[in-house]
Amino acid sequence: MDSNVKSIGVLTSGGDAPGMNAAIRAVTRAAIFNGMRVFGIYRGYKGLISNEIEEFKTNSVSNIIQQGGTILKTARCEEFMTEAGRKTAYENMQRHGIDALVVIGGDGSLTGAGVFANEYNIPIVGLPGTIDNDLNGTDTTIGYDTALNTIMQSMDKIRDTATSHERLFFVEVMGRNCGYLALNSAIASGAEAAIIPEISMEKDQLAELIDQGFRKSKSSSMVLVTESEITGGAMNLAERVKKQYPQYDVRVSILGHLQRGGSPTAQDRILASRMGIAAIQALLENQRNVMIGIRENEIDYVPFKRAIKKDREISPELLEVLEISSI
Amino acid sequence: MDSNVKSIGVLTSGGDAPGMNAAIRAVTRAAIFNGMRVFGIYRGYKGLISNEIEEFKTNSVSNIIQQGGTILKTARCEEFMTEAGRKTAYENMQRHGIDALVVIGGDGSLTGAGVFANEYNIPIVGLPGTIDNDLNGTDTTIGYDTALNTIMQSMDKIRDTATSHERLFFVEVMGRNCGYLALNSAIASGAEAAIIPEISMEKDQLAELIDQGFRKSKSSSMVLVTESEITGGAMNLAERVKKQYPQYDVRVSILGHLQRGGSPTAQDRILASRMGIAAIQALLENQRNVMIGIRENEIDYVPFKRAIKKDREISPELLEVLEISSI
Amino acid sequence: MDSNVKSIGVLTSGGDAPGMNAAIRAVTRAAIFNGMRVFGIYRGYKGLISNEIEEFKTNSVSNIIQQGGTILKTARCEEFMTEAGRKTAYENMQRHGIDALVVIGGDGSLTGAGVFANEYNIPIVGLPGTIDNDLNGTDTTIGYDTALNTIMQSMDKIRDTATSHERLFFVEVMGRNCGYLALNSAIASGAEAAIIPEISMEKDQLAELIDQGFRKSKSSSMVLVTESEITGGAMNLAERVKKQYPQYDVRVSILGHLQRGGSPTAQDRILASRMGIAAIQALLENQRNVMIGIRENEIDYVPFKRAIKKDREISPELLEVLEISSI
Amino acid sequence: MDSNVKSIGVLTSGGDAPGMNAAIRAVTRAAIFNGMRVFGIYRGYKGLISNEIEEFKTNSVSNIIQQGGTILKTARCEEFMTEAGRKTAYENMQRHGIDALVVIGGDGSLTGAGVFANEYNIPIVGLPGTIDNDLNGTDTTIGYDTALNTIMQSMDKIRDTATSHERLFFVEVMGRNCGYLALNSAIASGAEAAIIPEISMEKDQLAELIDQGFRKSKSSSMVLVTESEITGGAMNLAERVKKQYPQYDVRVSILGHLQRGGSPTAQDRILASRMGIAAIQALLENQRNVMIGIRENEIDYVPFKRAIKKDREISPELLEVLEISSI
Repeated sequence: MDSNVKSIGVLTSGGDAPGMNAAIRAVTRAAIFNGMRVFGIYRGYKGLISNEIEEFKTNSVSNIIQQGGTILKTARCEEFMTEAGRKTAYENMQRHGIDALVVIGGDGSLTGAGVFANEYNIPIVGLPGTIDNDLNGTDTTIGYDTALNTIMQSMDKIRDTATSHERLFFVEVMGRNCGYLALNSAIASGAEAAIIPEISMEKDQLAELIDQGFRKSKSSSMVLVTESEITGGAMNLAERVKKQYPQYDVRVSILGHLQRGGSPTAQDRILASRMGIAAIQALLENQRNVMIGIRENEIDYVPFKRAIKKDREISPELLEVLEISSI
Repeated sequence: MDSNVKSIGVLTSGGDAPGMNAAIRAVTRAAIFNGMRVFGIYRGYKGLISNEIEEFKTNSVSNIIQQGGTILKTARCEEFMTEAGRKTAYENMQRHGIDALVVIGGDGSLTGAGVFANEYNIPIVGLPGTIDNDLNGTDTTIGYDTALNTIMQSMDKIRDTATSHERLFFVEVMGRNCGYLALNSAIASGAEAAIIPEISMEKDQLAELIDQGFRKSKSSSMVLVTESEITGGAMNLAERVKKQYPQYDVRVSILGHLQRGGSPTAQDRILASRMGIAAIQALLENQRNVMIGIRENEIDYVPFKRAIKKDREISPELLEVLEISSI
Repeated sequence: MDSNVKSIGVLTSGGDAPGMNAAIRAVTRAAIFNGMRVFGIYRGYKGLISNEIEEFKTNSVSNIIQQGGTILKTARCEEFMTEAGRKTAYENMQRHGIDALVVIGGDGSLTGAGVFANEYNIPIVGLPGTIDNDLNGTDTTIGYDTALNTIMQSMDKIRDTATSHERLFFVEVMGRNCGYLALNSAIASGAEAAIIPEISMEKDQLAELIDQGFRKSKSSSMVLVTESEITGGAMNLAERVKKQYPQYDVRVSILGHLQRGGSPTAQDRILASRMGIAAIQALLENQRNVMIGIRENEIDYVPFKRAIKKDREISPELLEVLEISSI
Repeated sequence: MDSNVKSIGVLTSGGDAPGMNAAIRAVTRAAIFNGMRVFGIYRGYKGLISNEIEEFKTNSVSNIIQQGGTILKTARCEEFMTEAGRKTAYENMQRHGIDALVVIGGDGSLTGAGVFANEYNIPIVGLPGTIDNDLNGTDTTIGYDTALNTIMQSMDKIRDTATSHERLFFVEVMGRNCGYLALNSAIASGAEAAIIPEISMEKDQLAELIDQGFRKSKSSSMVLVTESEITGGAMNLAERVKKQYPQYDVRVSILGHLQRGGSPTAQDRILASRMGIAAIQALLENQRNVMIGIRENEIDYVPFKRAIKKDREISPELLEVLEISSI
């Protein structure tokens, strides 16, 4: 392999996700291991434009694998959506001698990367960093497993009080228009049901639940709900139940931003480490405009266009697992 | 000591709190250790009226010290506020030969206990079980330390995302009209401020914070808010900031019911164990209508009337600790 | 599908693993969902012989998905290795009308199941329950992800003190003759190296580490070691270093039995739920003498003989990830 | 108050303890709040001698309250026990203009502080930082509550496997010659007994346990043991049982260094924050050669000599609580 990349920049963009630091660490060390220089770019594309760029050494990423959030910080950046913004960004890269970028983020971040890469002919490799697990071409994303466990641990706490009081809880979790997080959280936490966008579009899940009388054999129930206009959110669903079925003692919990934080799980740290090293490997192989994906436990290169096109489907097996295991 | 108590009933009442199971375990074993019979009463006073009562043996409380919630379940019971309700309750006690009660709960539960005890001349000992730590005559209550740590761990997660994004977070926690939980959580989580009922009544804490420009030297801030009509709650405060200071990127998180759950901390398990054993000791000493308190690390007996009269004050030292350590 | 199985027994055998309860729950509910009766058999094959058998209903497995260990308890049973023992076991099955078994355990347990199944022509389905992840035909086993996270969290704590003191730690973890757990733990915890049986057989890993001077750029180091005769264990390795390199401040930590316990992670709960339901599905399809495996995220049936033949290999990619990310 | 202290140094010394970072943060901010300059001294007295000293600003201690270990690192330093070493240390203080020291550590560190303070007439205030809780004049020490919870959580995991297998576990914990940690851990984790130095000196606790047949009503047992020559340690006790009572399935677990690490609990963070601020307050009041203690929840000044004289006694109430609650 004979790559022209001598110096790379790494940035985190969009919503933060646990494991981003483990990815930054792996990218940095793999680059240095392969004789490259590495620059940390702060606040995503914003820092690329405002030139918040700093050279990283091996020690710059010591003792961060276990930390949530991102030491590079992240931001959403409207200026990068303009040609002028991207021009400044490119000029800053040149100033530091940065040949290529590794971008860690979700679909918005990768879309921006694709535009920038094409415009200035820069090799860019993306890493899927999002708790929503809503990207194509990869079985899982950096941050998803941690968020899943964080939700589950919150549900374990809520169950304590739910069973003590014999109540019906609606718990709202993140996921944008993707029910993956809610469905898996529901299975993992022994909840009764998951009201998710993919299914809510087709039928009235709440009506169905009510018709079945929730779990007649149980004294308390928990229902996961994806935060989404399609599901209506936990608050709306609870209001409907209160009106139609005043006999239920209904409560709502919106887990909110704590889902994004926390020390990453082993899976997320290992995934981020593997992907970070694979990103440098991809650049060495003169790959560009690809996202590193993981398929059937093997590293894969996914063209940006395919990664951000959403056509993931909810697994019928998982829906059945939830239904059967919560009887 | 020559006590007439041969057989006791134990119940949990009101809001559940972590450590209630450890208390049930200690009460049960201390009673058996002292030659008494023990009856577990389900769903608080409700179960006393509906006769959901079961004899407990040593093994009935095995392997529960680490569990959140309460195996006896809990409920609020309006019927117990009527004479007829209490009469049925008393008759059920007689039917099982129960001479005395140990009631684990907050001020509402202890108030009910006081009425019942006087009406039927029953020895009742109360244990302070509430996360709010809002009872008089005891330095701390069963469940408070666990809730404090649960909030702090949630804050640690929120801080990850707050610092990654440089945001201002308002986080709402429980406490009813007592700011103890919010103030201590703020210190423990390195938050900037705590907006609490005791102070909100006297001055506009938010205006003061805004005047000081929050922390000028910091890029992100977290403010704890007690859920209370007096503070207005996190949502209202955030709305005010958004209107007056649109430059802040404000977010709200309402921690909700997860604060009540979870495996109890060491302090709560030890406290509950000590108090549970002290409750039986108190009955053996022919005490009645007292709550077990802990003062300066010593067990104390607190008459119900004093326990439920609220005149606890916020410690000026803690307010200063928060102010200085968050500069 | 037309299955003759009307009534099943479920047992856990061998070393316990987190997620076994989630598996018991799923097996029980899937069986009831499909119209079967279910019997919980206590203490593994021992209880099958001593007739510690109890019918399970839906509620028998309520509120256990989050619990570590196994409510059915487990034991090693020499009597089941005799013909007489298995005869008694079979007679007890007949007495209760149990047509088929679901056995949750590691390779020893599945070997026993295979012998029993052939001898008495009983349909038996196995679930891979072991933290060691040392079974063939499945990408992962119930309990492995939890053990991995438990080790990682312990390492996070040890790192706090290691970096405060600038020490070299050897930490010994479980895994029998399989280095999978140690290698992945090392990556997840940012350790320097993993000394594992698969490689220790071929070369002197410690000598290699010492030759490289551990990490010259770092002030503290952690090395994972698989508990195994082949590696020699952490204590022996530490002794070697102390003798040859007295300048290192060496410490040893043997994590021990806490690796087996704890509330299961989301991955283990979901895996156990999927596998438990698949076990009943397999019986409905008249499968027998197969272990439920998971391959590339799909459920698979693995004949017992193949499952317990060990030929798993250590992934060269993971070895490289550890080497590069710890420079 | 009219203090001559314009500039302070802060260091951590001896064994590290969770909460030391929270203390460093509070000391730093309280000093700046009161118009002083602050210097962080690395590696304890060693760095004072080798001049590893750096000025701290408010931001130097941002985002560390939740971190285990100590950002100032710690070391044991033999050179400081010599006059020459202390002379160099004093000269480095003068070079930086440091008027006073805050020393965070255990009794060895405070003893050293006392000698140095007298020799050079330097105001020194100590903070009790040790997981052992073995200092006089303070109800608790920074790190103790976290270590207690860490042990308890490990015990919760061990209990999962202990009850699954019906075993007898000896678990060894830290504490030097102080059984406080073992005794409280035993109560909190529902263990059967604690074999601790204070009692082992007087009687053969193991023999007593064996005579009582451990818990006859229970199928598994856990016994905490303080790591100490007086108790003999867990390994020795297990050997004795194996020889005399081969029917027990005995296991040993030595928790080791993970007890020192981990994110501090709320109690430790609050305690460290209060004590750190009190240390600066003490210097402002021209106090010197005192340790900050906490007595009955109030800050207290304890002369070094009294703090390090050990005459703490084991509470008979706690011994009784353990005995009764584990029947």
